[in-house]
Amino acid sequence: MNNAVRICMIGAGRVGKNHSRALISSIPAAKCVALVDPDAAMLAETASEFSYEYQFASLDEALDKVAFDAVVITAPTFLHKALSLQAAGAGKHIFLEKPMALNLQECDDIIAAAQQQGVILQLGFMRRFDPEFVAAASRIAAGEIGQPMLVKSLTHGPGMPPGWARDLKTSNGMLAEVNSHDWDCTRWLMGSNFERVYAEVANFKGSKYNIEADHFYDTALVNIRFENGGLGSISGVCPCGYGYDARVEIVGEKGIMQIGELKGQAIVVCTDRDQGLITPIYRTWPERFEMGYIRELEHFVNCIQSGSPPRATGLDGRWAVAGVLAATQSMLEQRPVYLKEIL
Amino acid sequence: MNNAVRICMIGAGRVGKNHSRALISSIPAAKCVALVDPDAAMLAETASEFSYEYQFASLDEALDKVAFDAVVITAPTFLHKALSLQAAGAGKHIFLEKPMALNLQECDDIIAAAQQQGVILQLGFMRRFDPEFVAAASRIAAGEIGQPMLVKSLTHGPGMPPGWARDLKTSNGMLAEVNSHDWDCTRWLMGSNFERVYAEVANFKGSKYNIEADHFYDTALVNIRFENGGLGSISGVCPCGYGYDARVEIVGEKGIMQIGELKGQAIVVCTDRDQGLITPIYRTWPERFEMGYIRELEHFVNCIQSGSPPRATGLDGRWAVAGVLAATQSMLEQRPVYLKEIL
Amino acid sequence: MNNAVRICMIGAGRVGKNHSRALISSIPAAKCVALVDPDAAMLAETASEFSYEYQFASLDEALDKVAFDAVVITAPTFLHKALSLQAAGAGKHIFLEKPMALNLQECDDIIAAAQQQGVILQLGFMRRFDPEFVAAASRIAAGEIGQPMLVKSLTHGPGMPPGWARDLKTSNGMLAEVNSHDWDCTRWLMGSNFERVYAEVANFKGSKYNIEADHFYDTALVNIRFENGGLGSISGVCPCGYGYDARVEIVGEKGIMQIGELKGQAIVVCTDRDQGLITPIYRTWPERFEMGYIRELEHFVNCIQSGSPPRATGLDGRWAVAGVLAATQSMLEQRPVYLKEIL
Amino acid sequence: MNNAVRICMIGAGRVGKNHSRALISSIPAAKCVALVDPDAAMLAETASEFSYEYQFASLDEALDKVAFDAVVITAPTFLHKALSLQAAGAGKHIFLEKPMALNLQECDDIIAAAQQQGVILQLGFMRRFDPEFVAAASRIAAGEIGQPMLVKSLTHGPGMPPGWARDLKTSNGMLAEVNSHDWDCTRWLMGSNFERVYAEVANFKGSKYNIEADHFYDTALVNIRFENGGLGSISGVCPCGYGYDARVEIVGEKGIMQIGELKGQAIVVCTDRDQGLITPIYRTWPERFEMGYIRELEHFVNCIQSGSPPRATGLDGRWAVAGVLAATQSMLEQRPVYLKEIL
Repeated sequence: MNNAVRICMIGAGRVGKNHSRALISSIPAAKCVALVDPDAAMLAETASEFSYEYQFASLDEALDKVAFDAVVITAPTFLHKALSLQAAGAGKHIFLEKPMALNLQECDDIIAAAQQQGVILQLGFMRRFDPEFVAAASRIAAGEIGQPMLVKSLTHGPGMPPGWARDLKTSNGMLAEVNSHDWDCTRWLMGSNFERVYAEVANFKGSKYNIEADHFYDTALVNIRFENGGLGSISGVCPCGYGYDARVEIVGEKGIMQIGELKGQAIVVCTDRDQGLITPIYRTWPERFEMGYIRELEHFVNCIQSGSPPRATGLDGRWAVAGVLAATQSMLEQRPVYLKEIL
Repeated sequence: MNNAVRICMIGAGRVGKNHSRALISSIPAAKCVALVDPDAAMLAETASEFSYEYQFASLDEALDKVAFDAVVITAPTFLHKALSLQAAGAGKHIFLEKPMALNLQECDDIIAAAQQQGVILQLGFMRRFDPEFVAAASRIAAGEIGQPMLVKSLTHGPGMPPGWARDLKTSNGMLAEVNSHDWDCTRWLMGSNFERVYAEVANFKGSKYNIEADHFYDTALVNIRFENGGLGSISGVCPCGYGYDARVEIVGEKGIMQIGELKGQAIVVCTDRDQGLITPIYRTWPERFEMGYIRELEHFVNCIQSGSPPRATGLDGRWAVAGVLAATQSMLEQRPVYLKEIL
Repeated sequence: MNNAVRICMIGAGRVGKNHSRALISSIPAAKCVALVDPDAAMLAETASEFSYEYQFASLDEALDKVAFDAVVITAPTFLHKALSLQAAGAGKHIFLEKPMALNLQECDDIIAAAQQQGVILQLGFMRRFDPEFVAAASRIAAGEIGQPMLVKSLTHGPGMPPGWARDLKTSNGMLAEVNSHDWDCTRWLMGSNFERVYAEVANFKGSKYNIEADHFYDTALVNIRFENGGLGSISGVCPCGYGYDARVEIVGEKGIMQIGELKGQAIVVCTDRDQGLITPIYRTWPERFEMGYIRELEHFVNCIQSGSPPRATGLDGRWAVAGVLAATQSMLEQRPVYLKEIL
Repeated sequence: MNNAVRICMIGAGRVGKNHSRALISSIPAAKCVALVDPDAAMLAETASEFSYEYQFASLDEALDKVAFDAVVITAPTFLHKALSLQAAGAGKHIFLEKPMALNLQECDDIIAAAQQQGVILQLGFMRRFDPEFVAAASRIAAGEIGQPMLVKSLTHGPGMPPGWARDLKTSNGMLAEVNSHDWDCTRWLMGSNFERVYAEVANFKGSKYNIEADHFYDTALVNIRFENGGLGSISGVCPCGYGYDARVEIVGEKGIMQIGELKGQAIVVCTDRDQGLITPIYRTWPERFEMGYIRELEHFVNCIQSGSPPRATGLDGRWAVAGVLAATQSMLEQRPVYLKEIL
């Protein structure tokens, strides 16, 4: 395809692989031209797996050596601002993974850079592109369940996050790294911003995993009050072991809606009546949101080709960060925290 | 309760226990006064378990020694006619387990005896009293899915039936002993009688169980054409091992209806993402149809008290036997058999 | 039955009818001898519907005029203490509906009276007798999902509660009247007492219903920290309109368990592909917990007959009241409240 | 992509559109270069929708005017042989929709032509590429449910097939046009060929649709005996109205497996407790088998690129045709028909 959007993938880890696969296998309108990662071994492995023609240790090099239209940033959160500003400065469109950044100032800087350079900035909130979430949001917007009163969203992930992602010194912890999608989708589906939040956390598995980070937690439960008076709940459990679990339940003035389910495939087996029925669960996030990842990247490519603004914007990313910051403060200070305290 | 219906339970085996439990634990309007079984050990055990005041080796003795209003006959099929005629002759109301009898002449004799003596004759088709089947039948009758075109019913049971029940010399085999409910409920839900049937059977497990009965089969699949032009399917697998499975699916001119499910309890557990979700299955028929058994016996008691005719009649029992006979002939002769050939 | 437990039902309203039906239709070991209600019309109606031999305007009269062994108290919460003390004083065993009382002093008085008089005191926490909850609790206790880390329980009810039940002047509001079962079952399933709670509430429907009670809310979301470090969530929506919804989800160190479901019957129908599949929902609490109500009353009767202590004790009732009081204070003061502040 | 497989799509109707969409949107390794259809209006519409560069009224023209590697044949069944032989003669690889042909001689001719010309011949049995069917087949092959004893497969489609497809003069009727996938997948999953079949059909809707074709039926039920002694059932209902329904259930010596479900999306809504829960159903075959269609065409492209033989072969297509022919004869002659009678 002559006018395929040329992409430089930044980050050769799990998310970089996932997005490379989606782009290369399923999106004819995109072309992955370069892969960037400072970890040489991982860079080589992923470049080989997806037959990347060019691979670089840094975005600098990539910008210097090869032509492309856009970056897909899957590097750790603490690198998001620098990479985004560099990409925007070079006129590259930006697909930025969640969480957007470590604090609101960084979010603002990224948004400003994209605006000033006139590049597209899309956040990696794939739930907004998952066929079920899209259909559900559309039906809510059409009034099917009335005004949402209560929205509950959860993300429980199977494996322990990397060290930087669970330490409040280098990240905003699980509430950011695991629950970003819940922050975004509760706000999206409620149609209102957060007013105040209250968070409880628990540490059941830290000692088993020899985790010494201060304030480590593996279980979190957040209570949200929205500006429109609606209520919300976010739960995070990581590592949960049992699978990848991402579900939402909403009660509106007229009724209830459930989005998503534990079941990963419509195959039911029973071979032992004392054990019972067995059905596959979603094992991982790439399985659960396979279509969501493809659709969000297709959307990014389409926005670049058509010049239209993306769904899942920098402002959405900023609100998710704000929720995380308020909840983290709530957890540390054991009190409800108003968003206006930190905005 | 002064005017409780006094019942003599005939048969101390699994069905006799099940019906005793339903009557004694859940039906205040009934009183179990006597238990009859020629097997002394089983008689003693069941009498003890349910605190029967009187126990007898034969219905003769029971009739001679104790006053009661009705019998519940759970003895083997080949004894149904003799027991029914004896009970009717003594003016006792009759609750008769399926299959009704070995052949149509026996059915006719039982029906005639009950009519002549003016006693109630109710067949043990508990699906007709299961809350889900009752609701479904009512909705079909109200036209919700339009004229039924295709009805599929299955009964797959976990354990090997007793010797007499799987041998065509002493019973009509699994199509009768296991699938009687399917014969009854397909006819009930289709609202039409059988016109012709075609049956295929298979024997996968006989050698493993050292079964030497001629014509033994553990898997059966029957194709039915109804008088109204509708089609039907019955499947039987016994022993199936995996649980007790009794489900129906109906396609009507306007839509589809499914009745029943494999799931036995709304408890879902996952502790291993490679294994997946685990949900209880119905393990046994007493579990699956617990309410159906209570409701059918309540109905029997109510009919006696009110003098009203029962649902699930002798004629229904006769049609189920007719279907079995035609299907057995079909299986033996490897051709479709018309009901008119045997009626 | 000679030694049937004779019961005086107090309260002729919805719960009194429900429990009368369970006792009379399904529990041969009980005998409903008298019905008490100050509302003459309701008394007459319910007495007629269930063929009560005796009916009285007050417990005084009943105690004076007829012999019985036990009371089942379904009167409004603010009458629980007086009725319980009167019954205990007369040596009658007590089955007491939730919420136990308005405050902890009342709870203590009831517990003390029952102890002093040596009568059984059972609280109406039917979830502890529902077959699914019983099986689930047993499996959790056996370690199947490991140590519970997070338990979520919800009760969403279809209709607006009566005036006294939604006004904080005469009750403890929806958190008590609707969510009592959640307070009890989260504590039961977590195996730990509440340490602190934080509650958010919302009022979406009050103006539509012209409700002028101070602090009225129709939506509530409670965040719980248990003494063992576990977390919990309770949500209440009433009136929710869409059905009766009571479900629990628990994440333990080894896995997840879901108890209950929206689906009320295993009947699936589709007649319009644009509309989709239709499945019955539980419409009301008597439908959802039909077996739980029968089982809890059987248990009460059995405890009386055998002299054994009941599951679902006065202490359980007291803890549920304590949780409600802490959550109500949290909601009013907009801060987390420790149970030790009110115990 | 330099070595993209160049495809000439034959047929601009529903299937041609579906396969064009899959190839163009989701398969970077393929390039749709030409579209062929004798219907000028449909040709223009589909060519425009998918931006085909070349469009022709016949395969002759396409072969004459443009270079390509393979054809995807979605034309009516009665054209399959001629188109396949022409394509094979020109050295083009062939993806051929089901049913393969009208009779076994045509199947043999197609297979022979492909073999002689050394081109790949893949049949459009997308169930063999659907992730759920693939996983299920793999688990059966691994012995999870033991030797299959009974396999039931159904295809119920929403709309009335075109005239040629429901008339036995121009096609083999619904058993071929709608149920081809059931013929293929029962044989695949049972791991055995058909030995004999018995078919019943019914015509409930023909008069409503003014269909005058001889032997028209809208409901079919086939009973299969496999060479290995296993039993099978195929049901077809078309038009069924309620959605697109394609499910399989298999009982093996060790247990049961269900593949597929009615539910089309994991979104559950309830806004009216008298109506109940509403869940989307699969409305159409492109929805249900979206991934299956993509995967089968990817497989075709991969086989061409790698020179490896396809799953879903001409022989598989031939067996499905044989089953249809035997069942049609059974239906016309009202007797079981052995495959050996027609092979």
